[in-house]
Amino acid sequence: MQISKYFIICLALLTMTYSIKAQDSTIVQSKSSAIRLQLNTDESGRLSYSVKYRGEPIILPSELGFILNKPALSLNRFQLQKKDSSTVDENWEPVWGEVKSIRNSYKELFYSLVDKNGSGIRLNLIFRVFDEGIGFRYEFPKQQQMEHFIIGDEQTRFNLTADHTAFWIPGDYDSNEYLYNSTRLSAVDAKAAASHETDIALKSGYSNLAVQTPLLLKTDNGIYINIHEAALVNYPVMQLDLNKENISLKSHLVPDVMGNKAYLQTPFKTPWRTIIICNKATELLASKMILNLNEPSIIQDPSWIRPQKFIGMWWEMHVGKATWQKSGGKHGANTNNVKKYIDFAAEHQFDGVLVEGWNEGWEDWFGNWKENVFDFVTPYADYNIDSLSAYAKTKGVQLIMHHETSGSVTNYERHMDTAYRYMLAHDIHSVKTGYVGRIIPRGEYHDGQWMVNHFQRVANKTAQYKIMLDSHESIRPTGLHRTYPNWLASEAARGNEFNNAPALGLVPEHETILPFTRLMGGPMDYTPGYFHFQLNQFDSTRKTRIRTTLAKQLALFVTIYSPFQMAGDLPENYIKHPDAFQFIKDVPVDWDDTRILAAEPGDFVVIARKAKGKPDWYAGAVTDENARTVILDLSFLDPNFKYTAKIYKDADNAHWDKNPEAYTIEKKIVTNKTKTKVQLAEGGGAAIVFTRL
Amino acid sequence: MQISKYFIICLALLTMTYSIKAQDSTIVQSKSSAIRLQLNTDESGRLSYSVKYRGEPIILPSELGFILNKPALSLNRFQLQKKDSSTVDENWEPVWGEVKSIRNSYKELFYSLVDKNGSGIRLNLIFRVFDEGIGFRYEFPKQQQMEHFIIGDEQTRFNLTADHTAFWIPGDYDSNEYLYNSTRLSAVDAKAAASHETDIALKSGYSNLAVQTPLLLKTDNGIYINIHEAALVNYPVMQLDLNKENISLKSHLVPDVMGNKAYLQTPFKTPWRTIIICNKATELLASKMILNLNEPSIIQDPSWIRPQKFIGMWWEMHVGKATWQKSGGKHGANTNNVKKYIDFAAEHQFDGVLVEGWNEGWEDWFGNWKENVFDFVTPYADYNIDSLSAYAKTKGVQLIMHHETSGSVTNYERHMDTAYRYMLAHDIHSVKTGYVGRIIPRGEYHDGQWMVNHFQRVANKTAQYKIMLDSHESIRPTGLHRTYPNWLASEAARGNEFNNAPALGLVPEHETILPFTRLMGGPMDYTPGYFHFQLNQFDSTRKTRIRTTLAKQLALFVTIYSPFQMAGDLPENYIKHPDAFQFIKDVPVDWDDTRILAAEPGDFVVIARKAKGKPDWYAGAVTDENARTVILDLSFLDPNFKYTAKIYKDADNAHWDKNPEAYTIEKKIVTNKTKTKVQLAEGGGAAIVFTRL
Repeated sequence: MQISKYFIICLALLTMTYSIKAQDSTIVQSKSSAIRLQLNTDESGRLSYSVKYRGEPIILPSELGFILNKPALSLNRFQLQKKDSSTVDENWEPVWGEVKSIRNSYKELFYSLVDKNGSGIRLNLIFRVFDEGIGFRYEFPKQQQMEHFIIGDEQTRFNLTADHTAFWIPGDYDSNEYLYNSTRLSAVDAKAAASHETDIALKSGYSNLAVQTPLLLKTDNGIYINIHEAALVNYPVMQLDLNKENISLKSHLVPDVMGNKAYLQTPFKTPWRTIIICNKATELLASKMILNLNEPSIIQDPSWIRPQKFIGMWWEMHVGKATWQKSGGKHGANTNNVKKYIDFAAEHQFDGVLVEGWNEGWEDWFGNWKENVFDFVTPYADYNIDSLSAYAKTKGVQLIMHHETSGSVTNYERHMDTAYRYMLAHDIHSVKTGYVGRIIPRGEYHDGQWMVNHFQRVANKTAQYKIMLDSHESIRPTGLHRTYPNWLASEAARGNEFNNAPALGLVPEHETILPFTRLMGGPMDYTPGYFHFQLNQFDSTRKTRIRTTLAKQLALFVTIYSPFQMAGDLPENYIKHPDAFQFIKDVPVDWDDTRILAAEPGDFVVIARKAKGKPDWYAGAVTDENARTVILDLSFLDPNFKYTAKIYKDADNAHWDKNPEAYTIEKKIVTNKTKTKVQLAEGGGAAIVFTRL
Repeated sequence: MQISKYFIICLALLTMTYSIKAQDSTIVQSKSSAIRLQLNTDESGRLSYSVKYRGEPIILPSELGFILNKPALSLNRFQLQKKDSSTVDENWEPVWGEVKSIRNSYKELFYSLVDKNGSGIRLNLIFRVFDEGIGFRYEFPKQQQMEHFIIGDEQTRFNLTADHTAFWIPGDYDSNEYLYNSTRLSAVDAKAAASHETDIALKSGYSNLAVQTPLLLKTDNGIYINIHEAALVNYPVMQLDLNKENISLKSHLVPDVMGNKAYLQTPFKTPWRTIIICNKATELLASKMILNLNEPSIIQDPSWIRPQKFIGMWWEMHVGKATWQKSGGKHGANTNNVKKYIDFAAEHQFDGVLVEGWNEGWEDWFGNWKENVFDFVTPYADYNIDSLSAYAKTKGVQLIMHHETSGSVTNYERHMDTAYRYMLAHDIHSVKTGYVGRIIPRGEYHDGQWMVNHFQRVANKTAQYKIMLDSHESIRPTGLHRTYPNWLASEAARGNEFNNAPALGLVPEHETILPFTRLMGGPMDYTPGYFHFQLNQFDSTRKTRIRTTLAKQLALFVTIYSPFQMAGDLPENYIKHPDAFQFIKDVPVDWDDTRILAAEPGDFVVIARKAKGKPDWYAGAVTDENARTVILDLSFLDPNFKYTAKIYKDADNAHWDKNPEAYTIEKKIVTNKTKTKVQLAEGGGAAIVFTRL
């Protein structure tokens, strides 16, 4: 990664020590003055922050602090020792991403505090004020007063101004694979929302007033607020407790089995708590604030990291054509089958083939909290990994490894080195990991500090072996792909495999909410691209189905950004629609620029992206269950050129339920003055390739 | 290991199916008829066993069974389906040991049972009846009724006949490093016993009526009973709950944090529950029943396994001459210091030098439940491991590695492969492991199933790397050194380092109880051989001291058997007594034969052993705080030869407290007709070398 920096640290505006009794108030306005942060310390030492957006209160005065379990005390009254401020304005270039260059521009306020309850513990508070929101973190500096400590509770509050509309999933220590609910905050009922989610195998809800982040709120006067966190390292996931009486949210850290939240040692910095605030939904989606709050890449030479598009020995198992396990006579990952996938990938210019069910253990892998399931280096007897990896090489295709841990993380950690060496010995440089089931160490949750550290260990170790990583059933991202650009994608939300879930499945609005919530933290391995919608092809008893049109499946390759993009459907379904399939073959997975053209959570998302190092643009538009007309303003195109627009769109009679496979492809010449009208069917979408002439 | 087997499986005496209603009673008598086992099933299906020794009841009818947590049910009423019996009489040769050849002679009774409460679950029960006691285990065969299951409680009872004298330590999930208590069972008070044990850093007692095994009982008419277990694999440690009303003991399995005892999958066999019964204390000490109940060695070619005698960079830290950590200016494991140890070891024919405090991390290693402490491959800057291992090689001495995990077992497991490779790269083939502190995974105990499995993983992996293992703060042994002969020794009891513990320290009777309790399971790294008794040499404020005579320290090399024997004291203390030190230099660590000449728990132990492959014998005699005269019957000597007896004994005025360093060495000619009288001082002992003329 090359970073073109013009890093400017402005002079410290204030450097002074306040007396114990001083009531203090500090205001920081963002560069454009859109965001105004105020930090108050009252006579008793209570510390609170508040945020206004264009003069309108968004966060009312909200307290900050901690309860520690070791030493056992409350950090809720502080003496302000010192405050500094500084300004940063820099550009940096990600290894891969939605845009080529990212501007990081903020004002920072630094508070040096001492516990006023008597312990003498020192705590710093760092606020960064951007034009689109704020980030803040706590810092426990190295100090004699405290070295090792245990967080009992983080008491960060987000006091809201009104009963906003919220796009939320229920708080849960083990799963983030819920459908989104859109209700007033006062109508949040996490237990009810979770109770009918019978498609989720492992749920660990803890309160009916708990929601997860990224949480999207919308005020009645049209301001969008996203609450999340950035740079989650060595700390549990933050979820949110809702107090309906005063419409307030409070950080809820995922505990371990001892009831502790985090075992820490000074110096330590918490993740950033982030609040993105925009009055346009498109601006919220364009925000890079979370990425900007993460640390630069640890990888000095990232030349081996390559965004990829691939297919997988995967959907066969989901739809009942094949099985992961060898026993039963329907084993998918056998040598012949995978050879066909390699041939298909080579013929259609995919980079890779994911192979699930390749290794021994699938006969007894799930649901029994079993520790020694897979060893990650023993292929089934009918899977000749040596010959297949050699064959793939001759075809210019790479196999993609699959490591299902079944939640037995101690077992995976024992085998990781050996497993990664085994991958390299077979010329495999990407791994999809899975964490289905209850975690071992028993008593740990998917979202606790121990697992957060595990995912970081995996990111570090794969980086060390020059392996690219895609994690499933993992913590939702917080922008760490800036720091670990080999961590290409995560699942960490309800993905397309839920199309085949019998109870709730997926709903048409899902992909119009994901960008505002889960995707704010980082790329998702969503596996788009289905061409066959009734999922009873191989099992006539199945009632499951995909609830989009075919054109919308194409659009998702643009609207759901990922540098690790699997075309989910079966080869035999793709070759039935070679003209539509052409879009999947053409669409890039890395971009120089991105424009959010139109968006409203729960309704629609329209995005255009410029291919990495090429003049061509790609657009995707998706709608919810309602048909709608989208007018695309093509002013993003280079005014000096004309473009061919190849539009893959819903046919007039298309409908996610009644006629999902009806699409048309049209071509026309456009310029940056063109406004193209595209009709989206119910549950539909459109995908467009703009080729420069 | 070569096994000379004359394996005889006798005809099945009974092979029949009983009707549901049949009340059943089966009696099996040992070969000599000393032990008589009776197994009863009553009308309701309750199953109980009882044991008589030479006609006298030892175990009254005692129920057997389980409570399962998954499936949630009780297994306490059974239908007997089938019973078989068989006889085995074989000899086998251990890789190393107290004797060259071991006879394994028992009658086996096999019960095939079905749950009578309705689940249909099948359970087998296997009893082996030896002349010195019984072993029994439960077996859950592979069955459709149950595959994965979770033990909630094992309900094995040991109903005793009277309020015997017991030699016990309090039940504790994390520590077995207690002083022994000798009281009537009715006087057991585990909480009181534990409360003044302030020398133990981590205690996890759970009941005032709980004791650990090996538990020694003595009846009022002089019968010795040892209750323990054999072949503890994939199951928690068994401790014992005492019911004082009926003087009964019940298995108490160490739980995990979820309250579960063991996560299992059929087929599964529990460890053997062992009851050794003898009317002579010497016979009890000579029993090889626990070893016989273990599986043969997994190591095909054990030629690389070598019993060893060594010194250590270790006591310097305990007495305050040096520190483990580098900071502070007193770092023991620096290159110069260790070079001197290598020179000393070479000059005095020790096999190795243990080096503790060699690696980075000791500045912050204990007491904070910290996960990432050591990486096991990073020496301190002042410790040149490359030059030292090369230097040791030129001197014919091997370095012994030290892996302190600080209880962070997840961290150790992540590093094990790398750490063992690092050892081999430095020509180091033995490792002492340590587990000081609370276990990580947090919520696991030292003695739970997860840790039992960890110790087995270490035994397996070290075997794979041809590394010899000595584990400290580990589970107490159950004879697994037969199966893993590379697992030379464990600590797993109060060892000599407690001489320097300020509160209780060690007491003179300790080494007269250890052989009857802890050592029944396997060798202990007790680190005998102290020549300096007041431990204020380097820190005048210390009040700690060693509570034996010097002669007793020599005797311990014989009475406390271990193939991995560290002479614990400092080189400068040894060279002050070169004549006494000669015994430590001469005494072997592997034996062809062993005779327990006299023993009484809490009072004295006298043992003679014949050196491996040599005609010479060595004897050790130790007493408690009382002086006593021991008459050694030398009939074990070869009648065809005369021997020189070199007797290292307490001087007439020796006394552990008043005059510990007073010893004399005398020589005389003896034969197998000689009866040698030796006077042991208070807290004293004697060591004798019988050299064949």
